[in-house]
Amino acid sequence: MRAVVLRDRQLHVEEVASPIPLPGQVLVQTKACGICGSDLHFVKHAETLLTLARDSGSPSTLDLRRGVVLGHEFVGEVLELTAESATNAKVGDRVVAMPINFVGPPVPENMRAVGYSNDYPGGYSERMALFGPLLHVVPNGLSTEIAALTEPMAVGLHAVNRSAISAGGSAVVHGAGPVGLAVIAALRLLGVQTIVAADFSQKRRALAVAMGATEVVDPRIEAAMDAWTRVTGGTLGAQTGLVQFECVGVPGMIDEAMRRAPRHGRITVVGACMETDRFTPMFGINKELQLTFVLGYTPDEFRDSLGHLAEGRIDGAPLLTGFVGLDGVAQAFTDLADPEHHCKIIVIPE
Amino acid sequence: MRAVVLRDRQLHVEEVASPIPLPGQVLVQTKACGICGSDLHFVKHAETLLTLARDSGSPSTLDLRRGVVLGHEFVGEVLELTAESATNAKVGDRVVAMPINFVGPPVPENMRAVGYSNDYPGGYSERMALFGPLLHVVPNGLSTEIAALTEPMAVGLHAVNRSAISAGGSAVVHGAGPVGLAVIAALRLLGVQTIVAADFSQKRRALAVAMGATEVVDPRIEAAMDAWTRVTGGTLGAQTGLVQFECVGVPGMIDEAMRRAPRHGRITVVGACMETDRFTPMFGINKELQLTFVLGYTPDEFRDSLGHLAEGRIDGAPLLTGFVGLDGVAQAFTDLADPEHHCKIIVIPE
Repeated sequence: MRAVVLRDRQLHVEEVASPIPLPGQVLVQTKACGICGSDLHFVKHAETLLTLARDSGSPSTLDLRRGVVLGHEFVGEVLELTAESATNAKVGDRVVAMPINFVGPPVPENMRAVGYSNDYPGGYSERMALFGPLLHVVPNGLSTEIAALTEPMAVGLHAVNRSAISAGGSAVVHGAGPVGLAVIAALRLLGVQTIVAADFSQKRRALAVAMGATEVVDPRIEAAMDAWTRVTGGTLGAQTGLVQFECVGVPGMIDEAMRRAPRHGRITVVGACMETDRFTPMFGINKELQLTFVLGYTPDEFRDSLGHLAEGRIDGAPLLTGFVGLDGVAQAFTDLADPEHHCKIIVIPE
Repeated sequence: MRAVVLRDRQLHVEEVASPIPLPGQVLVQTKACGICGSDLHFVKHAETLLTLARDSGSPSTLDLRRGVVLGHEFVGEVLELTAESATNAKVGDRVVAMPINFVGPPVPENMRAVGYSNDYPGGYSERMALFGPLLHVVPNGLSTEIAALTEPMAVGLHAVNRSAISAGGSAVVHGAGPVGLAVIAALRLLGVQTIVAADFSQKRRALAVAMGATEVVDPRIEAAMDAWTRVTGGTLGAQTGLVQFECVGVPGMIDEAMRRAPRHGRITVVGACMETDRFTPMFGINKELQLTFVLGYTPDEFRDSLGHLAEGRIDGAPLLTGFVGLDGVAQAFTDLADPEHHCKIIVIPE
């Protein structure tokens, strides 16, 4: 089958072996796969990421010398079930799934990432082997390209759930890339009345409004926390209900959020800063701050995300800014560097 | 009155004006005052601390060009009440109090630190003006020097409360200085069965055992988290219940705690690192860590701390390693640098 293979920090369209589903797995034809910022990071910083994972006690089995097929925001169509695939999806159904697979029973030791694995090609390919029990059938009426937003929207739901923000609180969202926009959508869904979003890009600020931000700022003109104070008055009650969401992922953002946080301020870190960063512990201590780092989502949040998109509780359409075939993936990775033109590009492999 | 005045980063014993209690305040004769590690930091890093406080939105009114009388772990004997002092303490009673005072009604704008203020001399002096409603009478039978531990022990209670550790969980305490020892005492009081403490100093490790640590390690020989794994098996259940307490306060400690934390690990930062620090956000993200920074205590925790010491639920005696008069304070600040000889030195001003 054709696939986009990452090797030597380059993306190559190549012919690779089609995956053969093991018992418990399902073979799907890839219908759509979103390009994630993590994939852009991974192309540039794969060695660093694997080193960090190993250093923090989670060694990866990924071998960068072998090719890797990225893509973890996928929709597939079921081609072949196996005897033990334990799913109610039928051949021909469109499905989404958390991008993990299991070799044997589902225990952590047997877990393999789909899209960050030598063994399980991700969605920048024509076919994938997925784990049957994790499949969700895409409801009729939900378009394939919107269904491909199930995974990134689940990231936002998870961040908001872990932040423990309440509907009566307020949020400051630093960065309105796909992650920040997913957080904004989840905040709006929860009913948070004040959502201040900050981004340098006018296009991204417009998307933030489309997803539910109630105030948007260019941080070169007004700091996000200044806008929050302007809107809420910055009272003690407002301070207590505030959560800042760091969705930029570049060095210095966490320290700045800590610097501007009120007493007992809560900061949820969603943006993945890949580098060593600097911060000022005394900001945290003086104000008794709480930092909650988040990653991914739970199976329930993934399922809920699909439901929210299918029922129109989250409108993902504004995020979709481009479509490419496998031959266009390398160029799309370059194009995504410009936030004025693109937000989410969907790969259509066929 | 005589007092130890900090000026030009030096401690000078000088004659200063005795405080005159305003309405709402109480004049006390200082009977004892513990020397806190924060005071040692403050002598060296006062400018930095004031800059950080201002940068993070809490400007101090403290003017370092004027003298400052430190000391916030005090016991006094009531000399004089005022019309509105609103306390049940009587002249001659021994009292402890949170080291804050108010000029007018108790609102944040009117709050002044006792011991970090140009206006309110702390306990390294013969007399102090304290805020009447905050006084607690030291129960008969509790010695003055043990009562002086009310404040540092409250710091440990607060850290443990904010950490949300449960009795069935386990703790790793990095650093067994007075703060770490107070945390250990509070953990033991809560009934935490596994308390691993790490410190380079043999004397401090012995004190950790005296306060309730169930395992102590020299981190040059065995990393604290390795000891925790050895003792608990490091199972998923053990990981879920674990809280690491960072009580050292030097650069690199938070990053190392993050590096060694398990998935969903919780880190409570009690040690006050005064410098800019480096950390690895991906450790936090990959494992969805939570960092809780803590400072001080609530009025209830302060009151409870006195009760625990008075009723013997916390035995503070092992911590007391020296007593000095006002003339000995400067030397005591030097002596406290050696953890093999001293832990808590009590100043007896009279």
